[in-house]
Amino acid sequence: MSSFFGQHLHLSLFGQSHGEAIGITMDGFPAGMTIDMERVAAEMKRRAPGQSSLTTPRKEADAPEILSGVLNGRTTGQPICAIIRNTNTRSKDYGDGVDLLRPGHADYTGHVRYYGFEDWRGGGHFSGRLTAPIVFAGALCSQWLEQQGVSIVSHIQRLGNVVDDSLMDAGQVDAAALKAMHLPVLRAGLDADMEAEATRALQAQDSIGGVIECGVYGLPAGLGAPFFDSVESVLSHLLFSVPAVKGVEFGEGFGFASLLGSQANDPFRMVEGNIVTTSNHSGGVQGGITNGMPMIFRCAVRATPSIGQTQQTVSLKTGENADLNIHGRHDPCILPRAVPVIEAMAAIGIMELWKERQACVR
Amino acid sequence: MSSFFGQHLHLSLFGQSHGEAIGITMDGFPAGMTIDMERVAAEMKRRAPGQSSLTTPRKEADAPEILSGVLNGRTTGQPICAIIRNTNTRSKDYGDGVDLLRPGHADYTGHVRYYGFEDWRGGGHFSGRLTAPIVFAGALCSQWLEQQGVSIVSHIQRLGNVVDDSLMDAGQVDAAALKAMHLPVLRAGLDADMEAEATRALQAQDSIGGVIECGVYGLPAGLGAPFFDSVESVLSHLLFSVPAVKGVEFGEGFGFASLLGSQANDPFRMVEGNIVTTSNHSGGVQGGITNGMPMIFRCAVRATPSIGQTQQTVSLKTGENADLNIHGRHDPCILPRAVPVIEAMAAIGIMELWKERQACVR
Amino acid sequence: MSSFFGQHLHLSLFGQSHGEAIGITMDGFPAGMTIDMERVAAEMKRRAPGQSSLTTPRKEADAPEILSGVLNGRTTGQPICAIIRNTNTRSKDYGDGVDLLRPGHADYTGHVRYYGFEDWRGGGHFSGRLTAPIVFAGALCSQWLEQQGVSIVSHIQRLGNVVDDSLMDAGQVDAAALKAMHLPVLRAGLDADMEAEATRALQAQDSIGGVIECGVYGLPAGLGAPFFDSVESVLSHLLFSVPAVKGVEFGEGFGFASLLGSQANDPFRMVEGNIVTTSNHSGGVQGGITNGMPMIFRCAVRATPSIGQTQQTVSLKTGENADLNIHGRHDPCILPRAVPVIEAMAAIGIMELWKERQACVR
Amino acid sequence: MSSFFGQHLHLSLFGQSHGEAIGITMDGFPAGMTIDMERVAAEMKRRAPGQSSLTTPRKEADAPEILSGVLNGRTTGQPICAIIRNTNTRSKDYGDGVDLLRPGHADYTGHVRYYGFEDWRGGGHFSGRLTAPIVFAGALCSQWLEQQGVSIVSHIQRLGNVVDDSLMDAGQVDAAALKAMHLPVLRAGLDADMEAEATRALQAQDSIGGVIECGVYGLPAGLGAPFFDSVESVLSHLLFSVPAVKGVEFGEGFGFASLLGSQANDPFRMVEGNIVTTSNHSGGVQGGITNGMPMIFRCAVRATPSIGQTQQTVSLKTGENADLNIHGRHDPCILPRAVPVIEAMAAIGIMELWKERQACVR
Repeated sequence: MSSFFGQHLHLSLFGQSHGEAIGITMDGFPAGMTIDMERVAAEMKRRAPGQSSLTTPRKEADAPEILSGVLNGRTTGQPICAIIRNTNTRSKDYGDGVDLLRPGHADYTGHVRYYGFEDWRGGGHFSGRLTAPIVFAGALCSQWLEQQGVSIVSHIQRLGNVVDDSLMDAGQVDAAALKAMHLPVLRAGLDADMEAEATRALQAQDSIGGVIECGVYGLPAGLGAPFFDSVESVLSHLLFSVPAVKGVEFGEGFGFASLLGSQANDPFRMVEGNIVTTSNHSGGVQGGITNGMPMIFRCAVRATPSIGQTQQTVSLKTGENADLNIHGRHDPCILPRAVPVIEAMAAIGIMELWKERQACVR
Repeated sequence: MSSFFGQHLHLSLFGQSHGEAIGITMDGFPAGMTIDMERVAAEMKRRAPGQSSLTTPRKEADAPEILSGVLNGRTTGQPICAIIRNTNTRSKDYGDGVDLLRPGHADYTGHVRYYGFEDWRGGGHFSGRLTAPIVFAGALCSQWLEQQGVSIVSHIQRLGNVVDDSLMDAGQVDAAALKAMHLPVLRAGLDADMEAEATRALQAQDSIGGVIECGVYGLPAGLGAPFFDSVESVLSHLLFSVPAVKGVEFGEGFGFASLLGSQANDPFRMVEGNIVTTSNHSGGVQGGITNGMPMIFRCAVRATPSIGQTQQTVSLKTGENADLNIHGRHDPCILPRAVPVIEAMAAIGIMELWKERQACVR
Repeated sequence: MSSFFGQHLHLSLFGQSHGEAIGITMDGFPAGMTIDMERVAAEMKRRAPGQSSLTTPRKEADAPEILSGVLNGRTTGQPICAIIRNTNTRSKDYGDGVDLLRPGHADYTGHVRYYGFEDWRGGGHFSGRLTAPIVFAGALCSQWLEQQGVSIVSHIQRLGNVVDDSLMDAGQVDAAALKAMHLPVLRAGLDADMEAEATRALQAQDSIGGVIECGVYGLPAGLGAPFFDSVESVLSHLLFSVPAVKGVEFGEGFGFASLLGSQANDPFRMVEGNIVTTSNHSGGVQGGITNGMPMIFRCAVRATPSIGQTQQTVSLKTGENADLNIHGRHDPCILPRAVPVIEAMAAIGIMELWKERQACVR
Repeated sequence: MSSFFGQHLHLSLFGQSHGEAIGITMDGFPAGMTIDMERVAAEMKRRAPGQSSLTTPRKEADAPEILSGVLNGRTTGQPICAIIRNTNTRSKDYGDGVDLLRPGHADYTGHVRYYGFEDWRGGGHFSGRLTAPIVFAGALCSQWLEQQGVSIVSHIQRLGNVVDDSLMDAGQVDAAALKAMHLPVLRAGLDADMEAEATRALQAQDSIGGVIECGVYGLPAGLGAPFFDSVESVLSHLLFSVPAVKGVEFGEGFGFASLLGSQANDPFRMVEGNIVTTSNHSGGVQGGITNGMPMIFRCAVRATPSIGQTQQTVSLKTGENADLNIHGRHDPCILPRAVPVIEAMAAIGIMELWKERQACVR
């Protein structure tokens, strides 16, 4: 099934791009937290389209309406459901069923999976628009985690051939500054280079991919478990749920392939009475469990499949080869909008692990 | 929790490296399949230590004893439990609790997670030895999938600086030959280079990492779902459960970062009445659902943390810095033994997705 | 957690009596079923208040709005979310927090469970009003089950001291007639007796309980499993989720206590090439699995706790004993409104079992 | 599926009556508890056959062997697996497949469910013998709950026509005395009457059913949740997993049917600074959540289906009617052996709820 996640913090996601509404229900969220709706809205805005020339100018009213689980601005401990109405849907444009399969999209696989009964309009349930309620849920989790001293920040580590390989050490990261940047980077000026790279793709009626790197600071040691509920398992499960993510790595990740054990191991030292590691190749997770160092992971994000160029495809109606021309404007680079989604998924996953840990307290 | 997986095919893993036995229970496996125990044993042997100078010479009697779920050589449709006794355990060597934390291992994180009550002997529940029952379960799933026309094969795509970047196209892969190789590679002769690379690490009392690439052939279109139960989510959840795996990518994976949309999209064409894609950048998964093309994924495997060199660490008993010397011989390169584990996880994940699909048949 | 159910057919329930809206999300429902919304509305109406003097005259606009999962009147195979707006909420009547604990309600237990942050207005998330979305979900399941030849009908087997102990044999039950009765009974005239019994309670400013008996006809043999996912386990889990249900029994149920084995066993016979039992003491379930005979179960329903009489209680605000007088009119007998809820839960549970069975097809 | 339970305390049950071994894995059990194996053995013995003329004289070596999760007598916080070898299995007595269907057993339903591949010998996976590992798991949970001040005790409330309708008030129950009785009753002398009732059944080559009543004392208020994870839902799910249980009720249960609201409600009062109810009709659960009063529930247990009398049945091999004579001796009354199983299920269920509560602590 497509829409449920979590054993301790349950999510249920629903909606289609051009249906009545999209939304999410989150159960297991702690009672008594005052929600800062302005900050929720700020996160929603980071994901919303129309923020720059790099993202689709389509306007969406992404204001979540909370239907349940909140009273007088505070969580009740009961299921929180929020919906977002789809107002900008022109479904009459979409004909009476999918015909020309868009390469790189889920048109074909969804058609097979759902026997032709899927809502094909604008990607339907597969649409990236479904990440809006995920950002809502993640924003609540982030606020709760902040109260525990945990912060989650990201930068675009790569966009096309522009690479921001700065280290995400705790001391170097200015969370507020990164959140405020449309193309968050650690090395000054690289955002301009990235914008140029994306603009080149846009001008060629093309799109471009990249890598998002995320750091989680302030985590206690002891979250997670070996094997099936390792930190990496739970987080990758969520991260690969984000449309366009095709790779996930922790710490050195694929860089481990060429490291010797003596290079890859993180030595332990006592520092001010605490056990720490003097390097962080493991990205804060050892044996599937957090070790108290910053958690570092990266997600590979493929270029958005909707491009202006003519593409080869197949017509479902004729069963023959055909050419496809996608009209309208789309995101030439989804990375700036994907950043808050990745952060939201991290917040959700960490909170699930946190609650699992609470359940096992002696 | 650490040991449960699956909504439709349930796994329960248990045991510690130096406890009485390790084992696994699998529920939901179809009734009536005749198990080929010789082939199960062959898979177990691929994972077993002592196959070459590259792996630990430790001998383990890895013969699984099936306790339930099989009658007259056929599955009953009821829970299958198999155990493997731990015979080569010299727990008296291990003292009365963990003291010097081994870098790169779970000694520290496990100690925090389980309040000092964990079984620290030989890695306890964190030990790579727990992958033996996983290979058992995977071998059964593989046999069932074979009956559906699905095959799963792998090669070592990288070991240190030796790279086997051959394409895993269906036509090029000789599954039987790869299964028979200790260091399975597609390009002839690279296994000798890899062996030399690993031997250099061994001689330096060090260890070395790499990348395993896996191809799944014969999959129907329509397995998986968007969002939380995407193919990538379910498989990565399992793959990151394998100790030492720190990265997972599908299709072009992190290579997508520098691809334009026009390069990344897989065009559709009609071929002999079937809808296929003329390239397979997506690795057989689009929108979280299989598209009928070969599924291709890669796992980054870090070097084994047990090395002969002196390492910096901390003593839990004194609370002070200390030096660590690990005696005995360990695997300088875990890759050959990890290959059947990765394949087993793939088989388990695909079968979970297959059964989920069956549950949703109209 | 309170609001999730199912491994194969997932439900997520949300909302509070006086919040913005209540609703439910159902995932895993088959694609391609045309929904008969008139029949859904008919089921909703059976549960709605104000149908007679026996139920609260409160008017609620219980029209479900489907937000997702349906396109052109047919299910898409993706999550179906429906909400019901709360229009008749006068929350200003409710003060600023629970004070006088209503006996028999969840005021006290909810206050402890949710640390005082619960939405206390009108019972909040505990309200029987939350059964409206359950009836919606059940109505869809019933329509699907009907296509498989399964029908679910109920009668009020007992209301106070009036007992309708007629057998629910397949031949004797007129499903349409029972559905049309406000107090569905098998023995003609007993509904008038029951109405009189309930009216006596009403006139005494009191309320009255009873028993609902449900029969499920047309089930195939082979649904369910021994132990944790027995038919009885899955159904009772759902049935006890209905507020006011305090007992569940299958077949002879508590009557088994005084039966000998020779009386309790159902003999097998061949009838027209089929294996049947000549009695049905087991209520259609043996070893946790359906045997193809009608499934028969009963639910004990306690009297509604809201009564007009003065009751002893405690004030949370003063911490002292107090008297409670509940104003307004409530249901003196919830049974007629509980019948469609019980049927909905049965439909949901059977569909969950049906899909579990599909997942295990060889 | 048949063998998994729990979101926070996971159980996995496996084995067949005449297979190699039966067993259970429990994950999520807290680290650091010293297990009192003598008391575990005492619980196992209560369930074991051969304790009196009322139970089968078959001898079973029910000593559980702990394979994992325990080190130096203390739980490690990791999966606990225990197995019981089947030593007294004479499977050659059983022929080559099920033929004559035993009425009241799962022979027929299991045959349909598992396509004829089930292990039919001695009931296979359906056997009441599978309750032995459940008692093991429950014994561990009980020991943990005792440390939290919770105790679980039962009596046989009814055996055939002999009724022990004594109130299970906290003050009246002598837990140790009840645990020591073969037929635990509250009213002195009734055990002799019950024994006579059961002996009459035995002499008639018949068997007899009854009701077990269970009280749980020392529970805090606030365990459980409304709707799908109500205390009643979770416990009934487990209780109906016990073979032979066909009814479950809480507090007044089916007795609520004839009670008025004014009789059924439990008034609140302040007593020594605590909020208590002056009656306990609800059985300690209101709105699905414990209220701090004793939890009281009852299970209807049908007579064992194996009886000495000739019974009507069908032959699977001939497809014709046949007579069945079951040889060997069986339990004429399963109640004394069922008592510790019911208590074990209660302990497991309460611990699951307890851990769910911990996960939701603010």
